[in-house]
Amino acid sequence: MADIRNVAVIGGGLIGASWAALFVAQGLSVRVHEPDGNTADQVAARVRAAWPDLQALGLTDLDVDKALARLVVTPDMSLACQDIDFVQECGPDRLEVKHAIIARVESCIAPETVIASSSSALLPSEIQARASHPGRILVGHPFNPPHLIPLVELVAGQATTPQAVEAARAFYENLGREVIVPQRELRGHVANRLTAALYREAVHLVAEGVASVADVDRAVSAGPGLRWALMGPHLTYHLGGGAGGFRHYITHLGPAQQARWAELGSPTLDTATIDALIAGVEDELAALDADTLPERRDAALVGLLQLKQRLGFGG
Amino acid sequence: MADIRNVAVIGGGLIGASWAALFVAQGLSVRVHEPDGNTADQVAARVRAAWPDLQALGLTDLDVDKALARLVVTPDMSLACQDIDFVQECGPDRLEVKHAIIARVESCIAPETVIASSSSALLPSEIQARASHPGRILVGHPFNPPHLIPLVELVAGQATTPQAVEAARAFYENLGREVIVPQRELRGHVANRLTAALYREAVHLVAEGVASVADVDRAVSAGPGLRWALMGPHLTYHLGGGAGGFRHYITHLGPAQQARWAELGSPTLDTATIDALIAGVEDELAALDADTLPERRDAALVGLLQLKQRLGFGG
Repeated sequence: MADIRNVAVIGGGLIGASWAALFVAQGLSVRVHEPDGNTADQVAARVRAAWPDLQALGLTDLDVDKALARLVVTPDMSLACQDIDFVQECGPDRLEVKHAIIARVESCIAPETVIASSSSALLPSEIQARASHPGRILVGHPFNPPHLIPLVELVAGQATTPQAVEAARAFYENLGREVIVPQRELRGHVANRLTAALYREAVHLVAEGVASVADVDRAVSAGPGLRWALMGPHLTYHLGGGAGGFRHYITHLGPAQQARWAELGSPTLDTATIDALIAGVEDELAALDADTLPERRDAALVGLLQLKQRLGFGG
Repeated sequence: MADIRNVAVIGGGLIGASWAALFVAQGLSVRVHEPDGNTADQVAARVRAAWPDLQALGLTDLDVDKALARLVVTPDMSLACQDIDFVQECGPDRLEVKHAIIARVESCIAPETVIASSSSALLPSEIQARASHPGRILVGHPFNPPHLIPLVELVAGQATTPQAVEAARAFYENLGREVIVPQRELRGHVANRLTAALYREAVHLVAEGVASVADVDRAVSAGPGLRWALMGPHLTYHLGGGAGGFRHYITHLGPAQQARWAELGSPTLDTATIDALIAGVEDELAALDADTLPERRDAALVGLLQLKQRLGFGG
């Protein structure tokens, strides 16, 4: 596959603008397709806001104004897709919308150009189902915000070719992303299944009145969340196992772990539960500086990623 | 309750030594009870190793040698418990062992002195069941390593008095800990239930061949784990909801979340699964600098906690 120089981003929302920032930071030319005429300024503002972070992480040494000259935001799909080498699709996460977007994109690009969908809720086989050239369609799922969180889950559908997977892997890895390729498509891919599992128990504990929303959040961010920023659960248990490592952990504490699984909750997101969660989040937000939270999060993510680089933590 | 000046730590292993480091760093006098005669040097070495981190986090301005003069490690329970104001129990996590320890401790301390167990697997009602004075017994559950991870889960048993809970809360908060008090005792308290829920799905994905151990770990540490170090799941979803915040997230993406819950796995830790997990961890360790991992983890935790302090992230 030829070098990727020109990328189309379909959708100029939070995720699309963040991808666009990363792409232009890395020297690519980017066309953002977005029907909303007010979006061009918003996307440019988001790219400018992201620039100091991208510089701090060593993801760009370019001048932001020169980079923005390689960014076009347009409601014209054929202009957005002209001479494009890679498509990052960031439209609404509904299947009929995805199918409509892909039909329009396919009508404007070469048959082998990879289309990666940012979808978190849909499976690649569903997304590619009605495509003219389904083999080049896959999921390239980022985490918010994509220009800061390194993980990209690359998921093939039943029709996706190995060539498309490898082209997308090379593309994302060249951009400094941490790519994982699940062996099989599953609802939520990998990371959001882990997140959903944790969140199910979080909702159970709030719904049962065991802990407030704020205490559940604090139980993560002042506890195991600190370790998960550095290492996943297996490596964490490995260190918890002392000299015997993970083998010691799993043989000695595996039974307690399994007993815990049997007692986890199965909550329902009914109206009363949703109301309790919303009220709990409002209480939590009232006790902190909520307005500056997105900026502080980004600053903290940059510092955390620099710290991990310095101490040799991959991923 | 009187000021706490003298603390007994029952058990001189990883957790006990880390608690002891925090306690002496904060100016307390500490007696560590440990039957193993070789432990005194190990505990002192662990306190010395922890000192630069405790200084960096503003948790001590004391000289380590002067602090170590207030640390006694002894196999003599009556010496360990003499004139003690608070007991942090860190023995093996088996009920019959806890009961035996508590009987010995109770025979040496005043009837109102609080005994906090570091237990992760047992419930406070179980631990206090055979005590002479069960009202002062509770769980004060830390995360490894306790001198660095701020979270302490304070859990009352059926017999625990509110006075004991408040005394323990004040004690831990004075030590700079982030204390949560679940409204009810449950297996795994709060944080380890969330951890277990995530880990159940992690094991499912490995057992089903969807992802390797290393990829599951990377899916956490290069993805949502980075955000969980700063904010729990609710605040994370709040930011993911854009301008509409958590309410927008839960009303629009709640159904997708719930659909995901229905598809999560229920693995069993049978021999084949355990073998696959151990082999996967060995592969993962072979690809990184495993020997320096504990030191790098501690250095990264210190940097991360400093970063959170600087940017106003509580917990």
